[in-house]
Amino acid sequence: MAAAAPPPPPSPTPAVIYEDLLPTGYNVFSRIRLATIVDVPHIHKLIHQMAVFERLTHLFSATESSLSSTLFPENSSPPFTSFTVFLLEVSQTPFPLIDQNYPNFSPIHKTVNLDLPITDPQAETFRSCGNDVVVAGFVLFFPNYSTFLAKPGFYIEDIFVRECYRRKGFGKMLLSAVAAQAAKMGYGRVEWVVLDWNVNAIKFYEEMGAQIMQEWRVCRLTGDALQAFANINI
Amino acid sequence: MAAAAPPPPPSPTPAVIYEDLLPTGYNVFSRIRLATIVDVPHIHKLIHQMAVFERLTHLFSATESSLSSTLFPENSSPPFTSFTVFLLEVSQTPFPLIDQNYPNFSPIHKTVNLDLPITDPQAETFRSCGNDVVVAGFVLFFPNYSTFLAKPGFYIEDIFVRECYRRKGFGKMLLSAVAAQAAKMGYGRVEWVVLDWNVNAIKFYEEMGAQIMQEWRVCRLTGDALQAFANINI
Repeated sequence: MAAAAPPPPPSPTPAVIYEDLLPTGYNVFSRIRLATIVDVPHIHKLIHQMAVFERLTHLFSATESSLSSTLFPENSSPPFTSFTVFLLEVSQTPFPLIDQNYPNFSPIHKTVNLDLPITDPQAETFRSCGNDVVVAGFVLFFPNYSTFLAKPGFYIEDIFVRECYRRKGFGKMLLSAVAAQAAKMGYGRVEWVVLDWNVNAIKFYEEMGAQIMQEWRVCRLTGDALQAFANINI
Repeated sequence: MAAAAPPPPPSPTPAVIYEDLLPTGYNVFSRIRLATIVDVPHIHKLIHQMAVFERLTHLFSATESSLSSTLFPENSSPPFTSFTVFLLEVSQTPFPLIDQNYPNFSPIHKTVNLDLPITDPQAETFRSCGNDVVVAGFVLFFPNYSTFLAKPGFYIEDIFVRECYRRKGFGKMLLSAVAAQAAKMGYGRVEWVVLDWNVNAIKFYEEMGAQIMQEWRVCRLTGDALQAFANINI
């Protein structure tokens, strides 16, 4: 927001206005932290919104209970060794520092300055711990493996940012958080899939330095076709 | 084999020849079992042969040591919860029953009858435990996750069968073993990738009931592009 030109100085010691230091726009404080079982109701709603966005609600069958037992099982393994969820939270006030006490990860903080405030019609539904903290998105990923490198990597299954928080850099922030974690752990690759007609996303990924494996096709065995193997006499 | 019409009986008690019960061709006994750290030298050679076959030796950097530490780390997790290798072994004599003592898996045995014997020029290199047991191939897979199903699945990173054992059903046997394991564990999907010009493989997978996800493209962040995220100030 440009400041109006000041009037002529009324005295020999005019007030100097450092325009660059004046607050302009609206600050949104954001944090990426590891999700826990307490976050499952929010994760469930986010996945459902993703299914609606992708017009795939007929394939959506997750429940809070099935998410809890598969993402956060009893005797669950340490973060990053199995299915892992980073949660994106936003707030109008700075986040207190929390220590999630994992050797390999500390929550990531970023302040985003916007021209206009964000109106979140679902703020109450996605209210998280803290004064005005709201869940805005998530990324779910897990280890994969390259035999040529003899190294693990990460595969990103889903990235999702709620509608009113899009086009503000939060998707890139979530993707970068996974890439940074992989690099920090000495992992060899981060992989995910994109739809071939989503040219904006492909351009964005290529600018990040990702290769698009044009010749590869994903094969999927599921439902009855998979079930047919259950009692097969191999 | 159809039996020829018998000549008129020369005596009241002719010898009856049950041709269907006579041994024909050559039996190869095969077994799929979970690999252990002892198998790493063989796994390393198999991965190298795969790199040669795919003309990708410039991307091959695995060593026996790096495979051991990443596939079979100290405090390794139970089979199927992380990176898992099934090893295919063959023998000219039946395998003794072994108990790998895992609640969810017993070795899979199959006898394959061939018209011609297999000549294996690398039998000594791939000699395994047992009298005449030879390692013929492997499959490496690990859990993946579907948020819509709220279920784990398996992702198959590599399937490889040594050259002299190809076109005898062993590749299908390895793939089926992973699918059967997924079905047995109540998992939702088995996924892998195929090159789009490999029409024979695609036909084979479709006949198994797999869908080929035509619109999806795999994105990969690796090497320097990934390393650039290591110290990024997100």
